[in-house]
Formats: sequence, C-alpha cells, structure tokens
Amino acid sequence: MSEKRKSVAMVVSEDTLDKAFMPFMIAVTAASMDADVHIFFTFMGLNILKKKYKPKLPGIMKIFTGMMIKKMKKVKVPGFDELLSQAKEFGVKFYACNTSMKVFDLVKDDLIDGVEIVGAAKFLQLAMNSDTQLFVG
Amino acid sequence: MSEKRKSVAMVVSEDTLDKAFMPFMIAVTAASMDADVHIFFTFMGLNILKKKYKPKLPGIMKIFTGMMIKKMKKVKVPGFDELLSQAKEFGVKFYACNTSMKVFDLVKDDLIDGVEIVGAAKFLQLAMNSDTQLFVG
Amino acid sequence: MSEKRKSVAMVVSEDTLDKAFMPFMIAVTAASMDADVHIFFTFMGLNILKKKYKPKLPGIMKIFTGMMIKKMKKVKVPGFDELLSQAKEFGVKFYACNTSMKVFDLVKDDLIDGVEIVGAAKFLQLAMNSDTQLFVG
Repeated sequence: MSEKRKSVAMVVSEDTLDKAFMPFMIAVTAASMDADVHIFFTFMGLNILKKKYKPKLPGIMKIFTGMMIKKMKKVKVPGFDELLSQAKEFGVKFYACNTSMKVFDLVKDDLIDGVEIVGAAKFLQLAMNSDTQLFVG
Repeated sequence: MSEKRKSVAMVVSEDTLDKAFMPFMIAVTAASMDADVHIFFTFMGLNILKKKYKPKLPGIMKIFTGMMIKKMKKVKVPGFDELLSQAKEFGVKFYACNTSMKVFDLVKDDLIDGVEIVGAAKFLQLAMNSDTQLFVG
Repeated sequence: MSEKRKSVAMVVSEDTLDKAFMPFMIAVTAASMDADVHIFFTFMGLNILKKKYKPKLPGIMKIFTGMMIKKMKKVKVPGFDELLSQAKEFGVKFYACNTSMKVFDLVKDDLIDGVEIVGAAKFLQLAMNSDTQLFVG
C-alpha cells in the first residue's frame, strides 16, 4: 500500500481568503509530494474559480484584507495567483459543481481555464477512492 | 477492496442553508451510488434535525434566503424537505450528538423521526471505519 | 487491517468556541478509544494554542459566550482547559502551522507547551496515512 500513489480530494464551499488559500496550499504541498489532488468547488466556493477572483477576509474583517495580504507577502507566502499557477503546473484538478453553476447563473466562460464542470456523483466517486478527503469549510 | 460497500461519514455543526443542503446532497448522491451514509449533527447543526427547521443563509445574507430558495427551485434543486425524504428513503442514518442535545435543552421529541441519539464515541467508531469522512463546517 | 492502531488527523483553522471544543472532544474520545490523534492548527485556529486562549462564540453571538459556557458546565461538558489537559494526557499531538506563525507574528513561547511547529508537508504526510481526516472549519 505504501507504493500506491496517494490522492487527496477536497471540497470548498466558501470564498473567503482563508478558505481560498488553505485548499491551494494543501493542494500544492500534496502535489509536490507526488499525490493526485482533486478540488471540488461548490456554493460560494465557486467564486474562487471565477476570472479575476480576489480573496477577501470574512465578515467585518474584510477591511483588513490589504494588511493581511501585505503581511503574507512579507513572510513569503505565495500570492493567490501564484498558488493557482503552481497548482495547475502540478496537475491539480479543479471541478465546478454543476448545480451551483446553475444556481449562481454561471457559465464555463466565467471561470478560469482548465475547470471541469461535474455533478456531485462524479466528485464523490473520486473522493471515496481517495486517501484523504477534506471539506474545507 | 473494490467490492466492499463504500461508506461515508459526515459531521454537521452549523445550521445555515449551505451547511444543511450540502450534506444532504452528498448523502443522497452517495446513497444512490450504493454507499452507506452516516451523518452526525452536533452544536448548531442539531437545529437541522428539528421539526419545522427552515434553512436560512448565514449572517446578513439571511434576508436573501427567499431569493436563493426560489432560484434553487427554478434550476430544479430539490427542496430541503424533499432531500430529507430522499435521504430517509435511501437509508441514510442520522445521529444527534447527545452532549449537544443537553446543552441546547433538546429532547428526542423535538427532532424529526428516525434520529439516533449517540455520543461522540459511537460516531467516531463509524467514521474511523468509513471510506470517506467529511466535516461539513 | 482491523488490528492496526487507528489514527485521526484534524485541521483547525478557526478559533471560535464551537471550532475549539469539537476537535478536542473528538480528540479525547478518539484517544480514549486508543487511536493516535494529530491536530494541525492553522490561520485563526492558531489562537486556540495561545496561552490564555478563551473560547468565544462566533460573530454577534459572542455576547452569549458566558451563558453558553455556564450551560455546558451545568450539563457536565468538560471546560476547555480540562479538555486540553485530557488531550495532553492521552498523548494527542498538537501541530502549529509554521507559515501561519509567521503571518501572525507568533513565536513558540506564545503557545502552550508541547506544540510542534511544522509545515503543511509534515502534516499532510500524517494525514494521508491516517484512517480519519477532518477539516474542522
């Protein structure tokens, strides 16, 4: 079993800065450890896949987003766009929930390139066969 | 291993519309794929099992709940009551956290039928033996 | 496989009362069932490991924290400090995310004793080899 390629499946249903950075940092780290990574974006999480998405802190902390991003940059946390590029380079797979797409009136062209639009069944199939499953808020 | 029946265990600790719909949609989808599904409701998540529970969007978005539900209906997302019935029909198992029941002064009769009141140990036993575990917020 | 010691890996990224109590109650329960338990604290979750951390309810519910804690005590839920001690006695392992430490200007001495500061890779390695993984909000 230790020789089988590991796999990680994540669900992301929120779109705040913390919920956006965490799955991508986990994804890039896992992929760099040679694991297959699948991320399913649903509900508000879908916003993360939108072109020009800009992460914001949750609730009233939103006003501190700029400060937070500056601090993250200072301690060398990659920016969100950089994480996204890294994830793509590592072959991380992105899935958009087809039901959420309809609820939020989104079409494929609203999303960044390389996203597969799937139903919950397709993702569950992947998740049930993964070593690690995380529901990131 | 591929012939063993798959199983999914979820924890739900919030009661907003998104956190209510997601576990049920996952549950119904997984059950329709022939998996055993167990959902443990704790903290505010327990409200979802209350008779006459009505899902609401979180925080200040609460005022848009009606719009959201209308939109979901329009794109043929099953209503919450329908999801609940489907889950029951598919044999999805519901568990209420006994500690949370006491904290919120709830008794079995406050909850919908078919809920088993259990401690964390009972649920963990199920979760540790499941293929997929998700902590849905 | 049924004879192998079970293991649980959790990620905690928020610091509210509910997100603080749940991983500790799960940890203590799992450890008492003889499982190895690893908890990785990141983003706001890191606050939970701070000396003198006091859990508070989320958002505007913060003002009801005292009432909630009184009620929890009344129904014999262990206090947070007690849960923390129990977890330590049971050998639950605590990890602080090194990137978050830098973002929030924290040093080892700001945290309670017995915390290991690690990167995401170290934790993922543990998580991918665990039976149960939970991302507790």
